[in-house]
Amino acid sequence: MNLNSKIKEYASVTEDAIKRYINGMEGNETLKKAMLYSVTAGGKRLRSSMVLAACEMLGGKIEEALPLACALETIHTYSLIHDDLPALDNDDLRRGKPSNHKVFGEAMAILAGDGLLSTAFEMMVEGYVKCGIGHDGYVKAMRYIARAIGARGMVSGQACDIENETNQVFTEEMLKHIHSNKTGALIKASVVSGALAANAKDSDVAALEEFGEQYGLLFQITDDILDFEGDEAVLGKSTGKDSKSNKLTYVTLFGAARAHELAGIAAENAKKAVSRIDGSEFFAELVDHTIGRNR
Amino acid sequence: MNLNSKIKEYASVTEDAIKRYINGMEGNETLKKAMLYSVTAGGKRLRSSMVLAACEMLGGKIEEALPLACALETIHTYSLIHDDLPALDNDDLRRGKPSNHKVFGEAMAILAGDGLLSTAFEMMVEGYVKCGIGHDGYVKAMRYIARAIGARGMVSGQACDIENETNQVFTEEMLKHIHSNKTGALIKASVVSGALAANAKDSDVAALEEFGEQYGLLFQITDDILDFEGDEAVLGKSTGKDSKSNKLTYVTLFGAARAHELAGIAAENAKKAVSRIDGSEFFAELVDHTIGRNR
Repeated sequence: MNLNSKIKEYASVTEDAIKRYINGMEGNETLKKAMLYSVTAGGKRLRSSMVLAACEMLGGKIEEALPLACALETIHTYSLIHDDLPALDNDDLRRGKPSNHKVFGEAMAILAGDGLLSTAFEMMVEGYVKCGIGHDGYVKAMRYIARAIGARGMVSGQACDIENETNQVFTEEMLKHIHSNKTGALIKASVVSGALAANAKDSDVAALEEFGEQYGLLFQITDDILDFEGDEAVLGKSTGKDSKSNKLTYVTLFGAARAHELAGIAAENAKKAVSRIDGSEFFAELVDHTIGRNR
Repeated sequence: MNLNSKIKEYASVTEDAIKRYINGMEGNETLKKAMLYSVTAGGKRLRSSMVLAACEMLGGKIEEALPLACALETIHTYSLIHDDLPALDNDDLRRGKPSNHKVFGEAMAILAGDGLLSTAFEMMVEGYVKCGIGHDGYVKAMRYIARAIGARGMVSGQACDIENETNQVFTEEMLKHIHSNKTGALIKASVVSGALAANAKDSDVAALEEFGEQYGLLFQITDDILDFEGDEAVLGKSTGKDSKSNKLTYVTLFGAARAHELAGIAAENAKKAVSRIDGSEFFAELVDHTIGRNR
């Protein structure tokens, strides 16, 4: 299996569907432009690819999981737009391009984020109507995603992160809490929702949940390492911000060497979690790819 | 029927359910506090009352419509929090209290809005699981709400409003477009989703949709009038802002006298829309109450 071409395939299906969906909306044109600007800014499409790969691996129909994949990608994008705002991380650069508020202004960027989050919900419900009301697994997937993105998941992690810039609680517990919510919850929701949309058996859903847990950790640690060691030009975003702003990260708490070790452990655990599922090469290769990533 | 006591009854059921829901979430405490601050700031609970009244009038179960009512109220609240932000309307006062960002700071206010919108989605999906997967009308209601709140509805109207502060297009068409999306869409979604949750027949849903259209118009015109003529102390928010910021409203476009006339016409049309539905006194009285409102 060629991981990159598989991701490209998934990414292109997802991106086309999102673009078609947003372009088909009758609404304010600047708002739509602002939403599309960020949603097509060349993300890795990691989350949507994981939804589709999990669904396909477990015998589900890709077209049924697609609205969930699109939703997770637009949710991820909305969170980045709001994260980058001056009141939050105040980042001028995202994926090598000026961030949303630098192009469209703060007001429109806030609304673009709100619009994308609403669109995610809309796409999920429309997808449910399309795949046939009564598809239990799909409902469970929507529920899992809903719980992952809000005040007990991603937004909560973001709030802890913001608060901790003032409180400066530098413990492993706080670090894990922030990351498992801010990044981990959405990654976990991606693999789990793909499995649920495929009506997978409980043990497979649990295996993917464990994979999501460990892979989310791996992803975050490598993200922290890249902020410390990465190349701004390759990454397409500012680096060195964490240490400058005295942010709690795996590198600022444990140092780079230990962070690399922890990434290795998480990678092993992630691979182990899916090892007994047939056809899980996509996920095993994704782990290898992530531990070696430079962006 | 005593309209005020009926609204109080609906409002108390909704508010209790929202508070219980948010308090039951494991997540960042400041975030939850910020969400609850605005959601319990003494709103009129108009939207949730209309959901429950429509459902009850058409023979549905109130407890099945309750998650939709809660969702519409939290969506309304999130939109107010984001509206009040410095980058948007920059309002320091809301319902007689300092607005969310004045108390919790801009970053937390943005996140509180995001958290409330996510919570709305979560409550709706949880409610669907609870009322029994396969409840067609409930799914239609979720779909209607999803389409009303985002980039083809409320957020689009908000974007047009923001844009028009610069573009200054002062036409009736633009005014109608902004209002029908910014305020109208959510009001319409309230009555329609209540009817759908009751599995009402198509002609009743259509009647309530027409009511929502006309009542939304009435509500907006009286809102514009209150900004011009209202008492800041009674309203609990700043007045005279529309003319100062040269905003397109029914008063700035048509003058106060014509605005009062147009409100009267919308009120008549709204009443007519529901007149042939048995037990529609709640809605008829709501119209009378709204045309005479001072806050």
